[in-house]
Amino acid sequence: MPRIRLTVAYVGTRYQGWQIQGRGETIQGAIEDKLARICGELVRVHGSGRTDSGVHALAQVAHFDVPESKRHIPWRQALNAMLPDDISILEAREAQDDFHARFSVRSKRYAYTLWTEPRFTMPQRAPFVWPVRGLDFEAMDQAAEVLAGTHDFAAFQNAGTEIKGTVRTLEPIVRAPGTHSAEWVFRFQADGFLKQMVRNLMGLLVEVGRGGLAPADVRPILEGCDRRKAPATAPARGLTLEEVMY
Amino acid sequence: MPRIRLTVAYVGTRYQGWQIQGRGETIQGAIEDKLARICGELVRVHGSGRTDSGVHALAQVAHFDVPESKRHIPWRQALNAMLPDDISILEAREAQDDFHARFSVRSKRYAYTLWTEPRFTMPQRAPFVWPVRGLDFEAMDQAAEVLAGTHDFAAFQNAGTEIKGTVRTLEPIVRAPGTHSAEWVFRFQADGFLKQMVRNLMGLLVEVGRGGLAPADVRPILEGCDRRKAPATAPARGLTLEEVMY
Repeated sequence: MPRIRLTVAYVGTRYQGWQIQGRGETIQGAIEDKLARICGELVRVHGSGRTDSGVHALAQVAHFDVPESKRHIPWRQALNAMLPDDISILEAREAQDDFHARFSVRSKRYAYTLWTEPRFTMPQRAPFVWPVRGLDFEAMDQAAEVLAGTHDFAAFQNAGTEIKGTVRTLEPIVRAPGTHSAEWVFRFQADGFLKQMVRNLMGLLVEVGRGGLAPADVRPILEGCDRRKAPATAPARGLTLEEVMY
Repeated sequence: MPRIRLTVAYVGTRYQGWQIQGRGETIQGAIEDKLARICGELVRVHGSGRTDSGVHALAQVAHFDVPESKRHIPWRQALNAMLPDDISILEAREAQDDFHARFSVRSKRYAYTLWTEPRFTMPQRAPFVWPVRGLDFEAMDQAAEVLAGTHDFAAFQNAGTEIKGTVRTLEPIVRAPGTHSAEWVFRFQADGFLKQMVRNLMGLLVEVGRGGLAPADVRPILEGCDRRKAPATAPARGLTLEEVMY
């Protein structure tokens, strides 16, 4: 069966994340719903991985298989005509049989956006940022340096996953100005991420920025591999999946 | 009574415009609702002017008067704590007695954003843009030059207003790249705008860009002062009130 590869952008605000769950609307569910209408049968969509409820994507990647008779449907146009405005198919093309949206991933990049203007949050940006105040960005940069590299990131994995190995290689975390002058974007690229790992790393960095932890506290937390010793998870809405690399 | 001046940003998508109407939620209505809760009585809010249903603002200006006993309430903090995420008070400060959000306006600037990528619209930008395709921007720039200046803009005023004079002075229309690489932003500044004037000017420019009209057709339409001879109104969602000048 021909395999179709999708690149999908979405605003995650009103979804229960990427993956179909018992209840609530999901991105995967919305796409499968439209595919079922086009194909007249269930077509399973495989994403590169889950994104949490409220997390956004500029370029999530997914694939699905279709009967030979459906091979030449213009999937991008067909799906975009049916999907709501907060989900958009950027590209749809036929992939090799051995391409798998999840198992073929080489690395992923996420962006986490902080809003630093304490008096207000611009409503145009509110769904995409975490409002914080009074952060020491130099201390955060020092903490970020400790996190980069190949480590056991168990201290940054939330419960509720069956993944065994927790060693990942995190590229240097890059901090850059965002769309609005009140924004700072932190970019995280790794060969894989544990459950809520970016949000847990960001939670740690902000705690350092607030002075609740010193940069020197980061290595013991990382090496302790104990989630309970690390700061709280950052909110979902500041997180965007930017790119999946194969 | 002390007069408070507000600067307000909003995402207009789910509102029936700025001004209170018979039915539907409005920005003015949302702010008056919170003020009534704070003050225990109706407090009328006067905006610099209406914005249509679905139109956004980066910095709408409004004022209201409060009893002397309420003078020192921290209005920005109090209102932001109660308002939904899609409305935000950027600033609240006491104004002179003779300041009037509507009658003191010297000029206003609107931005209209076109989305030019035909294959998809980024969902993060969809609420703020008008998707168009295949435009001739040089022809649009030529048309825009004809519109700038002091003219009777009656051809660009929609019905349903009681305003008598229709002469306005429009500054040169400026076209600039937008937030996303697929965007072009047109900025319109004038000493005043007629009902849906920016959306009607934009509708004309896009019609020129599509080749349905030539730049040479613009002057006769402008000078004809007949709304029925001008192209259709552009959609509300691409429009943002950027600044009100006093």
